Amino acid sequence: MRRPGGAVHVSAESPEAVSLGEIAAALGGELIGTPSLRITRIAPLEAATPDAISFLANPRYRQQLAGSAAGCVIVAPALRDDAAARGAALVTPDPYLYFARLTQWWAARTRPVVAAGVHPSAVVDASARLGTGASVGPLAVVEAGASIGDGAVVGAQCFVGRNARLGAGTRLHPRVTLGFDCTIGARGIVHSGAVIGADGFGFAPTKDQGYVKIEQLGAVRIGDDVEIGANTCIDRGALGDTVIEDGVKLDNLIQIAHNVHIGRGSAMAGCSAVAGSTRIGARCTIGGGAGILGHLTIADDVHISAQSTVSRSIAQPGTYTGFFPLDDNRNWEKNAVTLRQLHALRERIRALERRAGKTDEPA
Amino acid sequence: MRRPGGAVHVSAESPEAVSLGEIAAALGGELIGTPSLRITRIAPLEAATPDAISFLANPRYRQQLAGSAAGCVIVAPALRDDAAARGAALVTPDPYLYFARLTQWWAARTRPVVAAGVHPSAVVDASARLGTGASVGPLAVVEAGASIGDGAVVGAQCFVGRNARLGAGTRLHPRVTLGFDCTIGARGIVHSGAVIGADGFGFAPTKDQGYVKIEQLGAVRIGDDVEIGANTCIDRGALGDTVIEDGVKLDNLIQIAHNVHIGRGSAMAGCSAVAGSTRIGARCTIGGGAGILGHLTIADDVHISAQSTVSRSIAQPGTYTGFFPLDDNRNWEKNAVTLRQLHALRERIRALERRAGKTDEPA
Amino acid sequence: MRRPGGAVHVSAESPEAVSLGEIAAALGGELIGTPSLRITRIAPLEAATPDAISFLANPRYRQQLAGSAAGCVIVAPALRDDAAARGAALVTPDPYLYFARLTQWWAARTRPVVAAGVHPSAVVDASARLGTGASVGPLAVVEAGASIGDGAVVGAQCFVGRNARLGAGTRLHPRVTLGFDCTIGARGIVHSGAVIGADGFGFAPTKDQGYVKIEQLGAVRIGDDVEIGANTCIDRGALGDTVIEDGVKLDNLIQIAHNVHIGRGSAMAGCSAVAGSTRIGARCTIGGGAGILGHLTIADDVHISAQSTVSRSIAQPGTYTGFFPLDDNRNWEKNAVTLRQLHALRERIRALERRAGKTDEPA
Repeated sequence: MRRPGGAVHVSAESPEAVSLGEIAAALGGELIGTPSLRITRIAPLEAATPDAISFLANPRYRQQLAGSAAGCVIVAPALRDDAAARGAALVTPDPYLYFARLTQWWAARTRPVVAAGVHPSAVVDASARLGTGASVGPLAVVEAGASIGDGAVVGAQCFVGRNARLGAGTRLHPRVTLGFDCTIGARGIVHSGAVIGADGFGFAPTKDQGYVKIEQLGAVRIGDDVEIGANTCIDRGALGDTVIEDGVKLDNLIQIAHNVHIGRGSAMAGCSAVAGSTRIGARCTIGGGAGILGHLTIADDVHISAQSTVSRSIAQPGTYTGFFPLDDNRNWEKNAVTLRQLHALRERIRALERRAGKTDEPA
Repeated sequence: MRRPGGAVHVSAESPEAVSLGEIAAALGGELIGTPSLRITRIAPLEAATPDAISFLANPRYRQQLAGSAAGCVIVAPALRDDAAARGAALVTPDPYLYFARLTQWWAARTRPVVAAGVHPSAVVDASARLGTGASVGPLAVVEAGASIGDGAVVGAQCFVGRNARLGAGTRLHPRVTLGFDCTIGARGIVHSGAVIGADGFGFAPTKDQGYVKIEQLGAVRIGDDVEIGANTCIDRGALGDTVIEDGVKLDNLIQIAHNVHIGRGSAMAGCSAVAGSTRIGARCTIGGGAGILGHLTIADDVHISAQSTVSRSIAQPGTYTGFFPLDDNRNWEKNAVTLRQLHALRERIRALERRAGKTDEPA
Repeated sequence: MRRPGGAVHVSAESPEAVSLGEIAAALGGELIGTPSLRITRIAPLEAATPDAISFLANPRYRQQLAGSAAGCVIVAPALRDDAAARGAALVTPDPYLYFARLTQWWAARTRPVVAAGVHPSAVVDASARLGTGASVGPLAVVEAGASIGDGAVVGAQCFVGRNARLGAGTRLHPRVTLGFDCTIGARGIVHSGAVIGADGFGFAPTKDQGYVKIEQLGAVRIGDDVEIGANTCIDRGALGDTVIEDGVKLDNLIQIAHNVHIGRGSAMAGCSAVAGSTRIGARCTIGGGAGILGHLTIADDVHISAQSTVSRSIAQPGTYTGFFPLDDNRNWEKNAVTLRQLHALRERIRALERRAGKTDEPA
């Protein structure tokens, strides 16, 4: 455990080095410097070594550029001269996007290809359909009527229930559950431990204060290009389906209750949760740990800060926040006690104002 | 992904249609209308089509009744005339409960029966006892001394530890862990990814600021008719057991720490958590994301709002709340800053009151 | 379910009784009383029976000592006389630590030893290295190049990715995922459902409001003596690694995002979360449900109360808190409404003060 925290490397897979020229040929951009320069890793500016390629996405960090030892830096046109003054550069309109594409190219180059076909230890029903190049890993279960798209990957120890469907190129990492009748579109990624299609939480109370379960007769329908984090849960709908539209990104340990609808391109950070039947618009972002109550409607382009509670529908785009500000414990205690008298304090202010002859507050 | 959000159907299992008469024969109620009317789905009022049966549980939504295209609506006696005026109806004292029973009847009719017996790929110790009609799915593990009740189902890839016990008719969905010595009663349902019987979080600090693990020597004891959500965790007790009484309903991603005791018929929504040794009474409801600190006692019939923190014991039934109200981010920032001076503001109000000669606040 | 809540036993494994003398011989301490006294269980003072050994860790509970029926009580030297006055005692400088060691000795004595070797149903790549005495359970998967240390245990249905490494004596409980290239040191414990090494949550936005995935090229590096709770997630780093130092203890359902660094000996309670790139110092404690935002630095010896949100770096050791105090719902409603006007209230107080000729508040 004596590894320096800031150290950066490209995993134990030890890719062979590539040349800058190869990167530019694959991903484009204007290359300033020697195409034969050898790159063995991708690193942030402050941790980069001469064999590393780095990027400057935010002009605010411009001053880090000159001090970086990176062999090459990906920069926007406005920083071409600054970058060229210190060494090799790749100039591109959106350095962060270029960096993202570089990581994909790098991963594709260095990670082993998943073998197509069904591992002999997997338990696959004879009626399941497997697309061309699809892969089912060791000890996975694929039930009757399930359909695995072309090039899709069912990881080790996954469970794919009856009549479930995976689109082309979608990848389930090890130990994922995709429940019966549930579907996910193309190019999806689901991380280990995620549970798609467990029952929603629905009960009818009885007179003797017990509960009768409402069987959840809907399913989960997930669009294309969706990523779902580790141990995240998406429940099946009670009657209709729970719907996750195209391009949605969900982090780890998220709870999506029955009949929730999440609009295209929205993203939710870890440990956030949405209660039943709530509808979230397109391009929203939900911060980590935020909780959205049930039966609400959230407009498009709404941004919820981390750890906030949404207890009412939101009709206007914007950024909304609601968490208790941290304080040292002693101050918090004093303020928390006072907070429970806040309404009374307002009344006292009103009384003082009346006494002072000031009455500009509306009742 | 062009599926309309409000669409409602009964899963891809495509049940054949049933007649209204069959429903009334199975579940009771007064049938108004043609017994031969064919029903192919259950749907909410606003999304129902003429081949759907719907229900009106809340008289507040009475105005939706006339406008619904549902073939039949389940209503309370008070709405018999309204319902009859628009088409077929099933009249019953508690429409929501009737609906719940209808979903159960529907699911039983349309879902495949789980085959009894042990799948050849499962690893079941010779000393495990299997009840009549019990089922152990593919790639499940059942250890020595475990006992699976009559008609109980151990889903694919589940792990049942040594000497663990499942009551009659209890169902573990795929990928559940039931740890050694832990027990669950009859008619339980446990969803994928749930972990029952991991170690509680207990350590003794050492002088050199390390920790020595306290082995968790208790188990988890779960009563009858308990439902446990996906990826929920219930830890084993340190010395005594963690106890979940009959009829408790736990949603997804819930954390129940060691030696917690949850009283009969209580229900907890997703992402809520209870810290060690806390005792929750009967018939409580805990909202989603709520957190209850350790070593507390919560009375019967206490209701905790979503996202609230319970930091003290609660002796009186009632509804309790504590989350920060959401605001647009700019207002939140201003109020949050001020909140950290709240105690000081109170002092300033007191000073103003003293100056104004008003001293009715107790010190 | 008629089991009394406070009952305490040593699991269904029914250990044979031991004598007090055996305990003292194994764990030390000054034994007062009959060495042949038979002990069959460990119990808290209030639930202890004459065949139980108990402990008094906190002098505040001194009055419970005289009333306890425990056969023997572990006490500090200051309580030797009180303890001796009521029966057998084991005197030791740190009774709680002694209790922890006793639970370990007890568990080792009563729990079955895990058999070394690979279960025939496991799928283990030929290139994986297994240390002396290592064990791979039923239906586990161990990929190419992985390394399982001496005496380490890979539980049933675990997944160990390619080139992952487990240190000597480390134990993965059933259904754990240890992703490719990730490492955990010696004597670690990982509970069921934990996912180590899923992708961090990283995307570059595109002009058309979509996202391009940033492949996560780092790994997770975990030190020695680390315990990780059930269904906890630790994501791999984007470029560098996510690092968990020696002696860290993580409870259940925790989210550790990419490139987080947690310092030696820190402990986090259930459902807490740390967002990306945040660095937590040594010996910190993070309460249950607390959320720490990304890109922050938390000093050594910082203690965060349960359910609190940390939105800024913390440079000073201390205890910090920020959750909304619970109230009955009606009071909460009134205070919550007023809270949204708090800044305005402050302005009104200022106005009153100005009017009263008092201006001692800094602008």
